[in-house]
Amino acid sequence: MVNFQYYAPTKVIFGKNTEIQVGRLVKEFKATKVLIHYGMGSVIRSGLLDLVKESLDEVGISYTELGGVKPNPRLSLVYEGIELAKKESVDFILAVGGGSVIDSAKAIAFGIRHDFDVWDLYTGKESVSDCAPLGTILTIAAAGSEMSNGSVITNEDGWLKRACGSDLARPKFSILNPEQTFTLPTYQTSCGATDIMMHTMERYFTTEEAMDITDSIAEALLKTVMRNAKKALENPRDYNARAELMWASSLAHNDLTGCGSIGDWSTHDIEHELGGMFDIAHGAGLAAVWGSWARHVYKIKPERFAKFAKKVFGIENPDIEKAAVLGIEAMEEFYKSIDMPTSISYFNISPTDEQIDEMADKATSGDTSTLGNFKKLKKADIKTILTMAS
Amino acid sequence: MVNFQYYAPTKVIFGKNTEIQVGRLVKEFKATKVLIHYGMGSVIRSGLLDLVKESLDEVGISYTELGGVKPNPRLSLVYEGIELAKKESVDFILAVGGGSVIDSAKAIAFGIRHDFDVWDLYTGKESVSDCAPLGTILTIAAAGSEMSNGSVITNEDGWLKRACGSDLARPKFSILNPEQTFTLPTYQTSCGATDIMMHTMERYFTTEEAMDITDSIAEALLKTVMRNAKKALENPRDYNARAELMWASSLAHNDLTGCGSIGDWSTHDIEHELGGMFDIAHGAGLAAVWGSWARHVYKIKPERFAKFAKKVFGIENPDIEKAAVLGIEAMEEFYKSIDMPTSISYFNISPTDEQIDEMADKATSGDTSTLGNFKKLKKADIKTILTMAS
Repeated sequence: MVNFQYYAPTKVIFGKNTEIQVGRLVKEFKATKVLIHYGMGSVIRSGLLDLVKESLDEVGISYTELGGVKPNPRLSLVYEGIELAKKESVDFILAVGGGSVIDSAKAIAFGIRHDFDVWDLYTGKESVSDCAPLGTILTIAAAGSEMSNGSVITNEDGWLKRACGSDLARPKFSILNPEQTFTLPTYQTSCGATDIMMHTMERYFTTEEAMDITDSIAEALLKTVMRNAKKALENPRDYNARAELMWASSLAHNDLTGCGSIGDWSTHDIEHELGGMFDIAHGAGLAAVWGSWARHVYKIKPERFAKFAKKVFGIENPDIEKAAVLGIEAMEEFYKSIDMPTSISYFNISPTDEQIDEMADKATSGDTSTLGNFKKLKKADIKTILTMAS
Repeated sequence: MVNFQYYAPTKVIFGKNTEIQVGRLVKEFKATKVLIHYGMGSVIRSGLLDLVKESLDEVGISYTELGGVKPNPRLSLVYEGIELAKKESVDFILAVGGGSVIDSAKAIAFGIRHDFDVWDLYTGKESVSDCAPLGTILTIAAAGSEMSNGSVITNEDGWLKRACGSDLARPKFSILNPEQTFTLPTYQTSCGATDIMMHTMERYFTTEEAMDITDSIAEALLKTVMRNAKKALENPRDYNARAELMWASSLAHNDLTGCGSIGDWSTHDIEHELGGMFDIAHGAGLAAVWGSWARHVYKIKPERFAKFAKKVFGIENPDIEKAAVLGIEAMEEFYKSIDMPTSISYFNISPTDEQIDEMADKATSGDTSTLGNFKKLKKADIKTILTMAS
């Protein structure tokens, strides 16, 4: 196992009616002027935004607001947020929404504390030295951004989707009320479950010796998510099922399921290219790509995939390679059972050879870098995987 | 499931040779003068204390030191630490040792930030409003104090063992190098494994509806600890086994295994009376009492004990009450297998009726309060449990 750092300082407030604590919490973290950041208006329609404003009013904290975050959050809105926050002397960003809103809020929080173009942090040209404090009120169980150090932003100029990570960007608090997810459309519930699982699986698939305890937590989390995703799809107002998914969302991406492992992340990286080019839902994009990635790499260490098959799906087969493949198939069957794709054609997209080449080229900076660790993928590998997935 | 707060802000640095990062870390958390606090000298003999001093010297942070912490850490040494820290203008406490040293360090950190007698925080006469920052270098996998909010101190005047908890006391960082536990005596390894398991089990046994994900993490943790405790006892220098135990120590007591549950804690509370009166090792004391507690309460909700039996020991029995008892017996068999007690007589102690009455009386403040939640234990219940355990 490898040495690791685990740092998950976010204060999580979990359960029914917890949103009304937001005023107390921003005060605890010394906010004086808050930017409330949100998406396409569901938090207005649900009444959540009014609740938040009431709670801030009660403690005498003033605020300004910026809605309009789209899935695959855009750099242009981040710039708008930074300008607004600077103009209004905002010192705390409150994200009310799902992963896209939180990622956008993190980008704004970076932006108001650096003098250069915030996009330079996402391209790696500059590195993070500061970040304004932020908090979240989560409305979708999926991205895990409510406890993670990461933010993924899409630059419309070239449709580049890039990530930036810093422990400074971990939210100070996150309010998780599963009831906020009762009205999520079926598709988003399934995409969310997939994203949660993939955050665990990207950490699970390692060629290094893994920690027992990390593996067993990861396997338990995956089984919990699969069981409860089905329950939530059958009955969207099942509080317990929604709660299991929501807490799993945070635990899957606060690094708990990666302790002692270096992880892989190439499915995410490939999906970032796909999502950047075609603007598809992140979770669905991951499901569409994962099986092809897995089939392309499992022979590097089939024992690992066989363990996955056994522990997550109860598949026992003395032929290790066969067990590995059965595990991949079982995962894809689960995705199908919650109406998630197992290929890109699901989106009515058929990337051309030129598009596949462009995505693989972007992902590897023109074949000068590799993706992942289970197998270090070169441009040619990524073209193969994207072709398999098409 | 109940609403919950999860807050585990400690930065964990885990793995080989991580001690040398201590200078960088105390600097990151803005220390200017450190009190190095330790136990009975094993950290001197192992060379760890010298390493720590070198690392502090390298970053130009000055320090003073106070050793001598005993198991069941004493209030008198805490007073000494507070006086020394105030005299030397200490602004950061560094605990180098196991749970007793860390608990003592937390008490000192409370003490230097309050004007009243620090013991008043442990009796509940006063409440915590501040705490100096502290960090830890862990040498025993057991207490979980390296990520927890709690501290347990024994007042020699009356041999009262009392706990105080505050999120302000959660360490800023904890350095966990499993190699530091290679030289632990067999008995301490077993006591540690027991303490880790009990931190999980005290949270597990609840009459409320529990969270799937919390249960499955707790069950996974218990199985990991049992498997790796045996490995570590067989081969004390098995890095991986020591690593599993060490990380389990932190996860078992940073509240992860209690999310959505109110927990019980009466075995701990009863052991505190036993440990206060007889100065026995905490882990062994817990093992000696747990079975009697379990037999006294399981009929309140045998389904919960049956689930424990099934998930942790693979015991399947259609008779729920029988399954519950088989699970309790299996746990006791495990304790015996690592030379832990299942009764108080193990310590060559036979508490008199008067002593049992005194312990039960202290634990319930003269029968005016109760212990635990699975069953709310009155003084008479505690007398019964202590008699069963004797």
